[in-house]
Amino acid sequence: MGAPEPPPPVRMELVPIGVARTEAGSVPRHWSASQVRGRLLIDPEHAAGLRDIRPGERIVVLFWFDRSPAFTPAHLVQRTPRAGAEKGVFSTCSPVRPNPVGMSVLRVLGVSGTAIDVEGMDMLDGTPLLDIKPHHEEA
Amino acid sequence: MGAPEPPPPVRMELVPIGVARTEAGSVPRHWSASQVRGRLLIDPEHAAGLRDIRPGERIVVLFWFDRSPAFTPAHLVQRTPRAGAEKGVFSTCSPVRPNPVGMSVLRVLGVSGTAIDVEGMDMLDGTPLLDIKPHHEEA
Repeated sequence: MGAPEPPPPVRMELVPIGVARTEAGSVPRHWSASQVRGRLLIDPEHAAGLRDIRPGERIVVLFWFDRSPAFTPAHLVQRTPRAGAEKGVFSTCSPVRPNPVGMSVLRVLGVSGTAIDVEGMDMLDGTPLLDIKPHHEEA
Repeated sequence: MGAPEPPPPVRMELVPIGVARTEAGSVPRHWSASQVRGRLLIDPEHAAGLRDIRPGERIVVLFWFDRSPAFTPAHLVQRTPRAGAEKGVFSTCSPVRPNPVGMSVLRVLGVSGTAIDVEGMDMLDGTPLLDIKPHHEEA
């Protein structure tokens, strides 16, 4: 009797739910330092999922760092631009990470159909969006 | 001359960076309601990326809802178990969403090699981990 087969790896593939739009040519490194306004254009097939998003609230947005270089072991420790110190990647908000998924907390300015106007953008124009979650520190 | 080809879709595939371990048979629906303790076992190849994670701090953990049913349009509006009201999926923390990525904010109890002991678990034993980010509401 041979050794048991290892379980097949879970396949984890993402689909875009929309795209970020902003006229800003550059964006702050972190949402908490950003007053940049922009728009989240969600694909119409997901319109019904947006029905409870209200102006004034904060939302958590997950997105794909589509213009970041590929992650290599050399990126496990990175020099942060602000502090200038070397830090382990999991203690930074660098876009170069094993899974290039970004997270921002944005303020909703308005919702019009499947377009969500937001403030606090730190993503580039054209960035693929992955998810929107409610932002609450309490359940 | 024919119409221009559309750009190829971005391929967004994730890799596990480790796995969540907990002895709890069930977990709260949301980390903010959880005192469950557990352990994040990070793959040794990423050890250097953990060097600045300290006991007492809070970390943002992204993970894959590997036991959730596939998302369909019927899940765009869902009844939440606590409030009992119907809500658009992007205003819920349901594990059934277009991209089944979960986000938790956990408190670090200790770090030993590539094992991070945490409190506030709302993920099941064996859940694939995707990312760890620093938790700070200010830059």
